[in-house]
Amino acid sequence: MTDTAVLLQTRDARGVVTLTLNDPARFNALGDEMLAALQMALAAIGKDETVRAVVLAANGRAFCAGHNLKDMAAHPDRVWYQDLFNRCTKVMLAIQKLPVPVIARVQGMATAAGCQLVAQCDLAVASSDASFATSGIHYGLFCATPSVPLVRNVPIKRAMEMLLTGDFISAQDALAQGLVNRVASPDQLDAEVEQLVAAIVRKPRVAVSMGKALVYQQRELGLEAAYQAASQCMATNMMDPDAQEGAQAFAQKRKPVWPQG
Amino acid sequence: MTDTAVLLQTRDARGVVTLTLNDPARFNALGDEMLAALQMALAAIGKDETVRAVVLAANGRAFCAGHNLKDMAAHPDRVWYQDLFNRCTKVMLAIQKLPVPVIARVQGMATAAGCQLVAQCDLAVASSDASFATSGIHYGLFCATPSVPLVRNVPIKRAMEMLLTGDFISAQDALAQGLVNRVASPDQLDAEVEQLVAAIVRKPRVAVSMGKALVYQQRELGLEAAYQAASQCMATNMMDPDAQEGAQAFAQKRKPVWPQG
Amino acid sequence: MTDTAVLLQTRDARGVVTLTLNDPARFNALGDEMLAALQMALAAIGKDETVRAVVLAANGRAFCAGHNLKDMAAHPDRVWYQDLFNRCTKVMLAIQKLPVPVIARVQGMATAAGCQLVAQCDLAVASSDASFATSGIHYGLFCATPSVPLVRNVPIKRAMEMLLTGDFISAQDALAQGLVNRVASPDQLDAEVEQLVAAIVRKPRVAVSMGKALVYQQRELGLEAAYQAASQCMATNMMDPDAQEGAQAFAQKRKPVWPQG
Repeated sequence: MTDTAVLLQTRDARGVVTLTLNDPARFNALGDEMLAALQMALAAIGKDETVRAVVLAANGRAFCAGHNLKDMAAHPDRVWYQDLFNRCTKVMLAIQKLPVPVIARVQGMATAAGCQLVAQCDLAVASSDASFATSGIHYGLFCATPSVPLVRNVPIKRAMEMLLTGDFISAQDALAQGLVNRVASPDQLDAEVEQLVAAIVRKPRVAVSMGKALVYQQRELGLEAAYQAASQCMATNMMDPDAQEGAQAFAQKRKPVWPQG
Repeated sequence: MTDTAVLLQTRDARGVVTLTLNDPARFNALGDEMLAALQMALAAIGKDETVRAVVLAANGRAFCAGHNLKDMAAHPDRVWYQDLFNRCTKVMLAIQKLPVPVIARVQGMATAAGCQLVAQCDLAVASSDASFATSGIHYGLFCATPSVPLVRNVPIKRAMEMLLTGDFISAQDALAQGLVNRVASPDQLDAEVEQLVAAIVRKPRVAVSMGKALVYQQRELGLEAAYQAASQCMATNMMDPDAQEGAQAFAQKRKPVWPQG
Repeated sequence: MTDTAVLLQTRDARGVVTLTLNDPARFNALGDEMLAALQMALAAIGKDETVRAVVLAANGRAFCAGHNLKDMAAHPDRVWYQDLFNRCTKVMLAIQKLPVPVIARVQGMATAAGCQLVAQCDLAVASSDASFATSGIHYGLFCATPSVPLVRNVPIKRAMEMLLTGDFISAQDALAQGLVNRVASPDQLDAEVEQLVAAIVRKPRVAVSMGKALVYQQRELGLEAAYQAASQCMATNMMDPDAQEGAQAFAQKRKPVWPQG
């Protein structure tokens, strides 16, 4: 991958992949190239059983400014728009369907579909000077797709206020409302992300993967169906060698030893 | 409309309609006359494309005390009760179905179906001396219909505590729990409401209208169906002349010029 | 019931039943005996119309440590696990289906299915030194069934963090996130629980019972169906003699007099 790629990818010895949005001149907007790069990267990660976690980071002042409105202005065509939103949705769903957790590392402004990216990630850590807005409405475009994960993250009246006003909220507000897990000073941002990453890579991959999928699946079900799905998930999880080792370790009052943990 | 009307209606040059509950002697209870007046007003607003936002306000010490228990005591008749709750539900659904945002301006106690009104509005601003309760249970009547928007606004255990105890929570608690968007001192209440109103009327009506409907629609769907509905909404929104103007303005680094904005 | 029973049961003159998990040597783990005792106790309470509320308490340093991992280690058998989770789910659903409110009195650590118990109760009061974790993942077992009530109590990113890291959160964090209703110093814990209990037993049993069931039922429905169910519930509730007395008392500006209130 060249230095000019819009999406950088690194990987450490533990199998932690960092995807870095790298189009700072365009505030990391989700243009065609960026969406394609994200889709390709996520698809490859999804098939790679040595990956343990993904950090979604960004270079520059903005985390992500959402769709490229300039491109959109140049294509007043419903089919073109529908195709754009379909590709973006595919990326968002790929994040949720990924068998490993995705942690947003938000160092700057996250607006419109950039805010959606944060909301769609499993976990998020924000720099104290990050800010968040569903700002499309300022240009006459209601942030409909961002509203999908937003209302599944924050209370409805807060979501509606962000969507109708387009105004920014601070990292602290995002924390209070449930949009991010943690806020850190800029120089502590990586350390805070690393805490979550380290906690995840210590766990067996199978349990994390089954668990992530189950949470999102059961959330959409009624209570009884949710419990049924969860019970089956746990029984399957317990039959996994890593869970058997964990239970044995507990019984023997020692630390579990896992191939990947 | 006469001075003695239970519901006052004003309208400013921007198309902002203020509906003021005006039966302070009965704490603005949702009696037959009040429900009919609300239903008629909301139906008319729903058809009037020049309206941009609705503020739901109240005169007197209470915002709204909910149903008129005295009337209910006088009609021990299941058919009568069912009809009453059906009419009330129709008003509540009309608020959600309205193509413009409805902002509750809560200057005093909001109890039972009065608390429901606040919860059902899209946005809410409370005076710091406002208070909220689902108090029916004090009289042996569980606030079942108020529980519908309540559990869609605040965490379930908080909702259950309010419903089972009937106790008041403060404006600050309502803010912390997501029942209202903002709290202001009594003399700043109008200014705070105006901030939200001003932010909304600056936006194109079509985008606001499509967006409000989409948020409530997609919220009831599974994630994939929600994204599908939202993508279609955004593509349709983008084809609207106001969104085209917004995108052009963005590309040309100028402010959008909208007929209604 | 002998002193060595794993579940103690007391009952006061008001019909308030306290169930106390009493296996402190095993941190009140939900072993076969404990699950059977809970299931039997809840089934009996469900049929006893003189019961008004249930407090779920625990003896020892832990509130409940969840499943007995040692037992699970000794039975590497999918059918055995599935049966275990089915029995546990039956207890959890029994709490929600009980016609009276269940209040968790959390005096210590609530982990895995112990945290699930707290989340599944209708209300919860925590000692300031209580703590909460979905810790199964530390042993390679994702807390899938605990995730069911957890995501229905707290914001999704908070739930996901607890589930993926297995780390403890404090009582204050549990309060901020909606997992418990109140936090009290250890010496004020009983007084705080009693406040909720007293508020509940003052209300008519029928209204409380219908209301609790309605809240959980309507929560799983779309808005219009939810309102329909709630309207029917309220009309039925109003025809109950206790609600009629309540409405009459309101009209006559006196306190209602109820046989059970």
